[in-house]
Amino acid sequence: MEPVIHQVWWRVTQRLRRTSLLPRRSHSGCAEHISVPASTRSRHIRPTPLVSRIYQPSHLRDVGQDSRVQGEMTCKSQRLMQQAGLIHSSNPGCYYYLPATVRSMEKLVRVIDQEMQGIGGQKLDMPSLCSADLWKVSERWELMGKELFRLKDRHGIDYCLGPTHEEAVTTLVAHQTTLSYRQLPLLLYQITRKFRDEPKPKFGLLRGREFYMKDMYSFDVSEEEAYKTYESVCQAYTRLFTRLGLRCVQVQADTGNIGGKLSHEFQLPADIGEDQLLVCGNCSFSANVETMSSDRTDCPQCKTGTLVESKGIEVGHTFYLGKKYSRAFKAVFTNAQNNPSIAEMGCYGLGVTRILAAAIEVMSTEEGIRWPGLLAPYQVCVLPPKKGSKMDKAAALAEDLVHTLEKALPQLRGEVVLDDRTQMTIGKRLKDASILGYPYVIVVGQGALEETPRFEVTCQEIGEKMFLSKDGLIDLLRKVETV
Amino acid sequence: MEPVIHQVWWRVTQRLRRTSLLPRRSHSGCAEHISVPASTRSRHIRPTPLVSRIYQPSHLRDVGQDSRVQGEMTCKSQRLMQQAGLIHSSNPGCYYYLPATVRSMEKLVRVIDQEMQGIGGQKLDMPSLCSADLWKVSERWELMGKELFRLKDRHGIDYCLGPTHEEAVTTLVAHQTTLSYRQLPLLLYQITRKFRDEPKPKFGLLRGREFYMKDMYSFDVSEEEAYKTYESVCQAYTRLFTRLGLRCVQVQADTGNIGGKLSHEFQLPADIGEDQLLVCGNCSFSANVETMSSDRTDCPQCKTGTLVESKGIEVGHTFYLGKKYSRAFKAVFTNAQNNPSIAEMGCYGLGVTRILAAAIEVMSTEEGIRWPGLLAPYQVCVLPPKKGSKMDKAAALAEDLVHTLEKALPQLRGEVVLDDRTQMTIGKRLKDASILGYPYVIVVGQGALEETPRFEVTCQEIGEKMFLSKDGLIDLLRKVETV
Repeated sequence: MEPVIHQVWWRVTQRLRRTSLLPRRSHSGCAEHISVPASTRSRHIRPTPLVSRIYQPSHLRDVGQDSRVQGEMTCKSQRLMQQAGLIHSSNPGCYYYLPATVRSMEKLVRVIDQEMQGIGGQKLDMPSLCSADLWKVSERWELMGKELFRLKDRHGIDYCLGPTHEEAVTTLVAHQTTLSYRQLPLLLYQITRKFRDEPKPKFGLLRGREFYMKDMYSFDVSEEEAYKTYESVCQAYTRLFTRLGLRCVQVQADTGNIGGKLSHEFQLPADIGEDQLLVCGNCSFSANVETMSSDRTDCPQCKTGTLVESKGIEVGHTFYLGKKYSRAFKAVFTNAQNNPSIAEMGCYGLGVTRILAAAIEVMSTEEGIRWPGLLAPYQVCVLPPKKGSKMDKAAALAEDLVHTLEKALPQLRGEVVLDDRTQMTIGKRLKDASILGYPYVIVVGQGALEETPRFEVTCQEIGEKMFLSKDGLIDLLRKVETV
Repeated sequence: MEPVIHQVWWRVTQRLRRTSLLPRRSHSGCAEHISVPASTRSRHIRPTPLVSRIYQPSHLRDVGQDSRVQGEMTCKSQRLMQQAGLIHSSNPGCYYYLPATVRSMEKLVRVIDQEMQGIGGQKLDMPSLCSADLWKVSERWELMGKELFRLKDRHGIDYCLGPTHEEAVTTLVAHQTTLSYRQLPLLLYQITRKFRDEPKPKFGLLRGREFYMKDMYSFDVSEEEAYKTYESVCQAYTRLFTRLGLRCVQVQADTGNIGGKLSHEFQLPADIGEDQLLVCGNCSFSANVETMSSDRTDCPQCKTGTLVESKGIEVGHTFYLGKKYSRAFKAVFTNAQNNPSIAEMGCYGLGVTRILAAAIEVMSTEEGIRWPGLLAPYQVCVLPPKKGSKMDKAAALAEDLVHTLEKALPQLRGEVVLDDRTQMTIGKRLKDASILGYPYVIVVGQGALEETPRFEVTCQEIGEKMFLSKDGLIDLLRKVETV
């Protein structure tokens, strides 16, 4: 930029600052590379979320195009999530994620990040638009058939919307001319929107056409090292599900169109699960029926146990790929002998939106959502008394309580909502709170006005009700883990 | 699930736990809805990032399909970002965001979240697949021409990949049959990947075909209230750019195919900017030339100033839409008189990936990247001496220093990297650190071995070098703001 223009810009900015167009600021404005003083951080502490203002519309009509959606099979998690204003159907297999769902998803992403980075995973982000050329190299352009969403750009060039990114990531790694064995294992992952043109989308977020997936890809120097990496990812998955309080089973699985030599699924037992599993009552063996001859009832591992059929929701999948993709795309590293060598690969998926819905599916009651504690959109809901009731004076105490909790328990900042819909009875609001599944619901009523104020707390997970002092509440909530 | 199967699952899980398939755990395993004790949190404190392990490949070849990309116009930010291993081109206008870029992007998203939620914005997430039916209602299916990526699903139904979501969000709000004036203003936003089939993608992340955008939509009870919301969003944008240290100017703009009555752009002055602006040297007036007759040189506001032409990169755009979309999609609320009333709308965009690239474009030198402080992928780089040099003993002190800094300054956890490539000279590593633009670079050399250890610190933003004790370093770095 020429100096004179630069000066003009500067003057203009200063003038704008003096007019109403740009707000006046106490700190130093647009000066070069300034950083805002730490004290202004307090500005970003959000005001208490009020239930009356949270956008969780519970009376959405299905109109127009949505008639198509109505033909889809539904299930408990989908019904509850729609009822509670967490999701809304758009096109078949495509959903709006409403604000509470986004909060929960962001928490799940943080837990996944922690576990993936804990084993050395590095997060990147690859384009959704994948060129047909790449997919032809792996032969999946044909193989995937109608499941691929395909399109042409304005120049007539073919693309697909990536349902998974083996081709893309292997190409990336192949482009590095200087990859050394010292840099391996290399674990690259992303948490992005994926696309799959399902013949029959159903069960809400459980089988959609557009969904979030965590996909990780590993590159190793040898088969032996690759198996170690594979095992380390499986362990991270198990840790993740344990932290979420989900009882997940790792089963032997088919490698499908991904290809490769070894594969496991992480299955969450559920009646509506679409996978048929065979589990041995006697030993550790468990497998997807796809991997077995269908009439087999004896366990191939212990030979004595009987295989029992069960249903599961697949929430994770791991594949040991070997050199299938690395050979095709020439993903080569320099080995310890200074020779070029083809990397051994693995790939590992987690259905992010699916984990959320599956958790709701297995944890909820028929009447209300129950969340993995870490993933609840908000941890605590405080209910002031009904307006005009004889406990009306306690209303101010409810607001005080929110501030006290957030001050005493920093991990609960932004996690405490106030149900300010005081035109409604406590009973009606308690029912809503039960549907939404806040882990802790605190009623500020008559007891709060006593000399030693006491509050009624419901732990929704276990359905237990207690009366606690303010200090007792703080002690109870101190153990709430957030992410 | 039937009880017997449930029991089998449970037994299987327990058995798996005893075998190598699932790791043994000290805490209570897969028990119902357990929460991991807070003490295990420390497990998620990531190990110190080592430069030798960070995936920022700096020697990526452009092969195959990338020959197409080579025809694109390039610019400083693109060149530097490719050189430093921050991005890699995939298809025209599509990029891999490599790990350091993802870190920076996540920080930018957090700042945007703070500012949007600070004015009451609620975050949601809408599908990328948008049905043609919706876009025909707004007439943009025709209007957008070749800029829309279009596709058909397996049933032959037409979709586009959303470049923006006025149709989708207005439909969502219209589906709520019970929207009350008490719930307005309603500000809904998302930060998601958008698609636009640019005729000429160029300048790396500045004009891509797949990119991240923050798009917010407001719904108000009246024109007057809608203007207040509009102003509040403009102020939030200005705060955001100020926090990033970016000198942004708000200019009067054309409403384009979005439609509506009033529009402003937030422009960052830069030589490679694609927008031609006219700014008055005398008053606050500034406008995109698109809004003016091209030969005009006198200022329409003060009548006395002369308009000077300048170039800018558009990083934000605001539109007051009125009832254009809310009428078409019937987004109706119940007003204070209990009558149905059509909402007044606004929409507000921020180019998320573009802000990142534009900031690098205007802040960097020709030789090295300089970041908005808040957005630097890592804040501090610590350099131990070269292996085998006479300062070799200081190597352990460098690792100590990283731990000391992270312990004394919690906001720097995960923000301090160790350049462990000790086979390289300090000089060579300093050069790399300058290209990558860590705000603070600390050399642990001869001075660290003195009786009162001293460290050489370079503040890369201002290019100043200092020698400080450990306490001095902590004092210096205490003021670093992170997000």
